[in-house]
Amino acid sequence: MERKELTSGVYLISKFDKNDFSFLENFTKIAVIFDENSKKYCYPVIKDFIPENHIQIKIESGEENKNLETCKSIWDILTNNSFDRKSIVLNLGGGVIGDMGGFCAATYKRGIAFVQIPTTLLSQVDASVGGKLGIDFNGFKNHIGVFQLPERVLVHPRFIKTLVKEELRSGYAEVIKHFLIADKAKWEALRQKPINNQDFDSLIPENILIKDQVVTSDPKEKGLRKILNFGHTIGHAIETHFLFQKSKKLLHGEAIAIGMICETYLSQKILGLSESDLDEVTEYVLNTYGKVEISSVDLDYIIPHMQQDKKNEGNRLNFSLLESNGKALFDQEISEEMAKESINFYNSL
Amino acid sequence: MERKELTSGVYLISKFDKNDFSFLENFTKIAVIFDENSKKYCYPVIKDFIPENHIQIKIESGEENKNLETCKSIWDILTNNSFDRKSIVLNLGGGVIGDMGGFCAATYKRGIAFVQIPTTLLSQVDASVGGKLGIDFNGFKNHIGVFQLPERVLVHPRFIKTLVKEELRSGYAEVIKHFLIADKAKWEALRQKPINNQDFDSLIPENILIKDQVVTSDPKEKGLRKILNFGHTIGHAIETHFLFQKSKKLLHGEAIAIGMICETYLSQKILGLSESDLDEVTEYVLNTYGKVEISSVDLDYIIPHMQQDKKNEGNRLNFSLLESNGKALFDQEISEEMAKESINFYNSL
Repeated sequence: MERKELTSGVYLISKFDKNDFSFLENFTKIAVIFDENSKKYCYPVIKDFIPENHIQIKIESGEENKNLETCKSIWDILTNNSFDRKSIVLNLGGGVIGDMGGFCAATYKRGIAFVQIPTTLLSQVDASVGGKLGIDFNGFKNHIGVFQLPERVLVHPRFIKTLVKEELRSGYAEVIKHFLIADKAKWEALRQKPINNQDFDSLIPENILIKDQVVTSDPKEKGLRKILNFGHTIGHAIETHFLFQKSKKLLHGEAIAIGMICETYLSQKILGLSESDLDEVTEYVLNTYGKVEISSVDLDYIIPHMQQDKKNEGNRLNFSLLESNGKALFDQEISEEMAKESINFYNSL
Repeated sequence: MERKELTSGVYLISKFDKNDFSFLENFTKIAVIFDENSKKYCYPVIKDFIPENHIQIKIESGEENKNLETCKSIWDILTNNSFDRKSIVLNLGGGVIGDMGGFCAATYKRGIAFVQIPTTLLSQVDASVGGKLGIDFNGFKNHIGVFQLPERVLVHPRFIKTLVKEELRSGYAEVIKHFLIADKAKWEALRQKPINNQDFDSLIPENILIKDQVVTSDPKEKGLRKILNFGHTIGHAIETHFLFQKSKKLLHGEAIAIGMICETYLSQKILGLSESDLDEVTEYVLNTYGKVEISSVDLDYIIPHMQQDKKNEGNRLNFSLLESNGKALFDQEISEEMAKESINFYNSL
C-alpha cells in the first residue's frame, strides 16, 4: 500500500500518484509554494499529479525570510491571480514554508484551504501536525500567527533523502524530544544507535503519532500540549539570539539540542530526575550534535529572549521538564538564575 | 437594569460600572486601543473601571490606517510591554479599531483575548458581532484577516451620541440592510420615519439580534451568512474605488447605500422583486443619503474591484439579492454587464 492515513487528514505516502491529489478537483485555483531547494528536489516528484493550471510561488529559503515582507509578496501573488475563497495553497517545503505559507492561506480573505507537504525531517515529524502557523517578528520566533488545521498533510519520507546532514540532524532533535517526553521504550531503542543507522521510514510515522496524540488532547496549548516545548524555552532563546549573528548560524534542531541538555539539567534540579537519566541525554545529544560555545556575552542576550516565550504568564518563566526520560511535566516555574546556571552547565561539559 | 446579555457574550450596557470590567481580573496585562475620537469621547466613560495598570495604544482614525503598518506598530507595543498569552486587548472605537485591533490580538502569539467596545452605530450593529476581523491590503477591503470571536462585546448605545451626522448615517445603512434582508415588518416601520426621528436605543439591540441569528447559523460564511452582504458587492467596490481618491470620500455606509439601490435594481431584474419594493428602497435611501455622481471613468475602476469580492467563486460574480423587501437569497450570479447596468440605473435616478 502506497498511501496510508496515519491520523485524521495526515497521509503517509511511499510513492505519489494522481490519486493523492484528486481532492484538488474541488478547488477553483491552486498555488504551490516552494523554495529553491524544494523546487529542485521535491516539486518534480509531484508536479505531474497536480492540475496543470496551478501557479508557482517561489520564495527564498531560510528562517530570515519567514517574515511579514515575504507574506506580503505571497498575498500579492494570490491577489493578482484572483485567488478566491475556494482556492487552495500547497506548501511544499520545510518548516518555514509550512508555517508561513499556512499563515498566509489562513489569513487570505479570512482563510482559504492549504495542504502541508513537508519535505524535511523537522517539518515531517513536527511542523506538519498541530496547526501552528506563523512568522517571526522583530526577531521573535513565530511571534505572529494563528492555529489552523490544513486541509490535509502529505508525508513522503523519501523527501528527507535530499537533505544535507545538518538538516537531518536538525529534525532529529524533535525525534529525540518526542521520545524523551512521551515514550521511554522508544528512547531506549533510539539511543542505542547513532543517527546514521536509524530507520526513518518507521521513525517518522511513530513521531507523527506521538505528536498527534498530544496535540489532539489539547489543540490550543492550554495544558498538556506544552510538554512539546521541552528543550524549546532555552532552545528558542538560543536560536533567536544566533538568528541574526553573521558569525555563528544554528539550525532549529541544533539550538533545541542545546536546550534539551540545559532543560534536562533543570529537570534534575527541580523534578529530581536521576543522574543517570541526565547522563544518558547529555551523552547522546553531545555525540550527535557536538558542542557549541556560548559566551557570557551571548548569555546576556539569551536570557531576555526567554521572557518572550509564549508559555510564560506574567513574570514567570514556565518550562516543560522531564520527570524521567520518557515522561514530561509542564508549567514548571524556573528563575532566570536557574536558567543561566543550566547554560553554564552545558558550557562546562 | 443597566446591563443585559443580549446574546452569548454580547452585553447591552446603559451605564458602565466596575462590574462590567471585573472579568479583566483573569488577565495578566491589559491594553486599550483607541483613536483620537474614541480617546476623547469614550475612554473617559470607562477609564476608571479598568484596572489602573492598563496601557494605552493610540492609532490614527480612518480606514486608510487599517493596514499592516498600523498592525506592526500595535504588535510592537504589545511585544515591548511583554504581553503574554494571558493578556487582553480592549478595542474601543469604530469598525477600524475593532477589525484591526481584533486581528492584531487574534494573531499575536497565535491569539490572545480581546474585547470589542464599539463606539459607532456602524460597529455596534455590524462589526461587533460575528467575529470577522481584518485589515485592508493593496486597496482591497478586509483582504487579510481571520474569523475569531471576542472574549465579549460591550455595547453602550449612548456612545453614538458623540457621532457626527455622517457617521450616524454611515451606520444606518446597515440598519436598513438588516431589515431589508430579514424583517419586513421592521423595514415597514423604519421607512415611516427619517433617521433623525429613530429610537436607536431599541434599533441597536434589534439589529444585533438579527445579525447574531444569521451569523450563529453559519459562522464561516458557507451559506446563509452571505445574505449580510446585500448591497456590499457593489458597495464595497465603490468604497474601495473612492478610498484613495482625494476628491471624493465616501464612508462605508454611504457606499453601501448606493450598493443597496443597485442591488435592489438587480433583485428586480433577476428575482422579480416588485416595482413597488424597488421604489420603496430607492426613495428611502435617496432621501437619507442624497445622490453621488459616478462617472463612466469611475465605473471602469469599480467593476474590476468586484472581481475581488470574497463571495465570488472562480469567474462568477456572486450577489445576495432581495426576493422581497424583508427576505434575501444568496449565491445569485450576476454578469459584469448587469452590474454595470445597475450602476447606470442609480445614475439615472
